[in-house]
Amino acid sequence: MNDTATRTLVERYLQGWNETDALRRRALVEEVYAEHAVYTDPMVQACGWETIDATIAAVQSMFPGHVFRLGGPVDAHHDMVRFQWHLFAPGADEPLVIGFDVAQLDDGRIRQVLGFLDKVPQVA
Amino acid sequence: MNDTATRTLVERYLQGWNETDALRRRALVEEVYAEHAVYTDPMVQACGWETIDATIAAVQSMFPGHVFRLGGPVDAHHDMVRFQWHLFAPGADEPLVIGFDVAQLDDGRIRQVLGFLDKVPQVA
Repeated sequence: MNDTATRTLVERYLQGWNETDALRRRALVEEVYAEHAVYTDPMVQACGWETIDATIAAVQSMFPGHVFRLGGPVDAHHDMVRFQWHLFAPGADEPLVIGFDVAQLDDGRIRQVLGFLDKVPQVA
Repeated sequence: MNDTATRTLVERYLQGWNETDALRRRALVEEVYAEHAVYTDPMVQACGWETIDATIAAVQSMFPGHVFRLGGPVDAHHDMVRFQWHLFAPGADEPLVIGFDVAQLDDGRIRQVLGFLDKVPQVA
């Protein structure tokens, strides 16, 4: 994949995390991830379209109205890519959560996500 | 793996990059990586002990006397870990190269390294 295609894939990936319409979200999940993709972050490990879609839906219900945005450059080589993402509360200028994902690609889709957290909300 | 064991594994991994005695380096490679581990960074993809060992030897001959050191905290969850490393020229205080690796672990050894570069030397 060239850099433009990789960046588009990352943007579609984040769009999936923002899409709350169930049918459109599932379509994005199937477009962006390979069928048996594995998504892992510190909280969850999800395998395959059904579970990944359910994981995204669960995160959306925990953070209603929040928006994921790309947090910096997209760095790719071979079949892998890394990027930071920011999660914004409605109307906020500062991200509530900052995460960092490395993804392995396979034939233009994501085969695996290795997700980490750079900033998490402080519990009062 | 607990955090201490993961940190020890990362330190042994960097020790492998620093070990120039061929027999000791190969022993470290076999200790640290699973037999069919895949190592990928922007320059190279190496599969298995033999090729990984040869890759490390090639890097050592490109950077004689240089030392790899852990560059920050070791962040681990599930079967994955991320960390930054610094490569120092002999006697240097500032790293010549800064890299960032995500590794997937399997039964206490590294199954896969997804390596990226954060700082590369400027070519004059």
